[in-house]
Amino acid sequence: MKKNPKQIVDAFKKTGARIETRSRVKMNTKEAFALYYTPGVGAASMHLAKNPKDTRAMSVKKNSVAVISDGSAVLGLGNIGPYGALPVMEGKALIFRELGGIDAWPIVLNTQNVDEIVKTITAIAPGWGGINLEDFKAPECFEIERRLIEALDIPVMHDDQHGTAIVVLAGLINAMQVVGKKWNGSWITIAGVGAAGVAIIRLLKRYAPGVNIIAVDREGIIWDARKDLNSTKRKLIEDKLIFAEEGGDLKTALIESDVFIGVSGPNLLTADDIALMADKSIVFALSNPVPEILPEEARKGGAAVTATGRSDFANQINNALVFPGVFRGALDKGVTRITDESKLRAAKALAALVIKPTATKIIPDILDKRVVKAVAAAIR
Amino acid sequence: MKKNPKQIVDAFKKTGARIETRSRVKMNTKEAFALYYTPGVGAASMHLAKNPKDTRAMSVKKNSVAVISDGSAVLGLGNIGPYGALPVMEGKALIFRELGGIDAWPIVLNTQNVDEIVKTITAIAPGWGGINLEDFKAPECFEIERRLIEALDIPVMHDDQHGTAIVVLAGLINAMQVVGKKWNGSWITIAGVGAAGVAIIRLLKRYAPGVNIIAVDREGIIWDARKDLNSTKRKLIEDKLIFAEEGGDLKTALIESDVFIGVSGPNLLTADDIALMADKSIVFALSNPVPEILPEEARKGGAAVTATGRSDFANQINNALVFPGVFRGALDKGVTRITDESKLRAAKALAALVIKPTATKIIPDILDKRVVKAVAAAIR
Repeated sequence: MKKNPKQIVDAFKKTGARIETRSRVKMNTKEAFALYYTPGVGAASMHLAKNPKDTRAMSVKKNSVAVISDGSAVLGLGNIGPYGALPVMEGKALIFRELGGIDAWPIVLNTQNVDEIVKTITAIAPGWGGINLEDFKAPECFEIERRLIEALDIPVMHDDQHGTAIVVLAGLINAMQVVGKKWNGSWITIAGVGAAGVAIIRLLKRYAPGVNIIAVDREGIIWDARKDLNSTKRKLIEDKLIFAEEGGDLKTALIESDVFIGVSGPNLLTADDIALMADKSIVFALSNPVPEILPEEARKGGAAVTATGRSDFANQINNALVFPGVFRGALDKGVTRITDESKLRAAKALAALVIKPTATKIIPDILDKRVVKAVAAAIR
Repeated sequence: MKKNPKQIVDAFKKTGARIETRSRVKMNTKEAFALYYTPGVGAASMHLAKNPKDTRAMSVKKNSVAVISDGSAVLGLGNIGPYGALPVMEGKALIFRELGGIDAWPIVLNTQNVDEIVKTITAIAPGWGGINLEDFKAPECFEIERRLIEALDIPVMHDDQHGTAIVVLAGLINAMQVVGKKWNGSWITIAGVGAAGVAIIRLLKRYAPGVNIIAVDREGIIWDARKDLNSTKRKLIEDKLIFAEEGGDLKTALIESDVFIGVSGPNLLTADDIALMADKSIVFALSNPVPEILPEEARKGGAAVTATGRSDFANQINNALVFPGVFRGALDKGVTRITDESKLRAAKALAALVIKPTATKIIPDILDKRVVKAVAAAIR
């Protein structure tokens, strides 16, 4: 029962909002007002003015996450601004609540200036337990996240980068097992070298330094001779994270590749392209909502394992498997920085939840209750 | 059963947070994920990117209010910063939910710079249905509110100003009836010429141009010869809203005054001071949490009607009677500016809910279910 766009818009209009607030205390007596409002609240305020470290224990800061976007890179839809971003942020807030038991609220920004974004988020940070950055475009997203992590004493994570990297690594650990290939010496082609692509490259190489990665953007393979590379892409070469000795287009990259990971845009590939890959190829077509290639088409081209980011195909490689658990763990343990070690542990923990991986089951189900606990336990 | 400060802090620690989020849709099936997250959300996002005016109909913007403070003038406690402000903002969010059915969330700022505050709130505005400013100090609060009203297409109200002014006018309409005095020619002394004081003066004079108001700040009566007046106080004189021909201290002002309205600080007056006032005096000691004078003490000095802002005395003149209804009305009717006419209507509607005012009943109870409806109906 797939809905067409008009039916979806109508469903959203019917709901109005997907999340709301709820009181955790009853306010039906004068005594409650006298305690939680005036005069009682004055004592709580004076206490926190003198002991700001108690803020988490005594307020919404204990369990809250702001889901923030500037709308510059929404899903695979591009720069569609704050109003276009809001349904996605609200959807994430809903998932934070439903899967993570976290009080998240969507905040969309009407600026796309890096300095203004950093200042704005820094200014509103004191009342939040964590900041989930979402759908900020590259390369600005890297600077925004870095500066906020430095400025704030609460966990900050750009989910397009790290949530995606963690869930991709988790899925790939199991997919490689299904096809019986070794990481060491394998070749991975990644299409899309934005927020997600860069973070995936860095985490995969940290997990398996012996794997070979070819990174492809709109202009083709990222390699040494290219003069148009931004500093982030250039740094991938400098850090020896990608194979950068030869150029070419995406098809060139795919030849004999064992794995394709798409974090780029819709309808990039055909079955013929997949046929260029090595035997028993793995195809993660993660562009949302429309993948780089539909799973059925990829299998026609010889793919042994396929995955998308969507809920309506097998093997949903989606950040929703990661971000509720990451922030659940961070909030519960007072963790202020999500380290690379935590990310690797989280990916391995996610992968391990699938006891016997198969071509149609490389990753836990998004509704699997064990997921949040396993990821949260990995954050420390 | 009054609680001491330690007991209050312990109660806040036990609760952790007083509000949380709740889902308005179930997320327990793949179909729900496919509709409200990916791929479905993509259609909603594209629709809003092209039709931003539909954002209210399709998102949290429909029913949400950000309760924002910079912590520069928290209750009567002063400039205690964002962490000190948070319990108050959270308490207001709780009251928005409980009384107004509004999804409000507290946001506290770690800047007190006017430009940064205006930029920050403008930047985060797109996803909210309204902005409730709270506990910003004067005179900065006037510029902050004015600039935000100009910049944004959603209702913005600094509640310390307008919520207070509306509820004070409502209470005073009934109190004047109780003591049988006419507004025209009566004298009102207002102590505290910050956010609340200025707004009260403006609204009272708009309601009854023939009333005489003496405004008193820490340095004494605001009058023409004073060289230390900021532009806001100077403008009260220029606009002929206050009696400014003679100076003096608070006691001088109180002599033969019919009404005292305190929006200043704790323990300012004694019974002897109240005895200086005219017969059948009205004393609104609204400093929170500790009033300018306790009701019992004011009655010893001859006050016929007393009121405070607190929940634990009769006649609670508190903004909580106003802000839920103002925003309920604005959200329901798509009102983007809270006009002076709306404020007057709201005050009269509030006053009219008390059918037969008495010395201990000049204002509806904060738990009276009719309050929000009456105030909301006045906003148009």
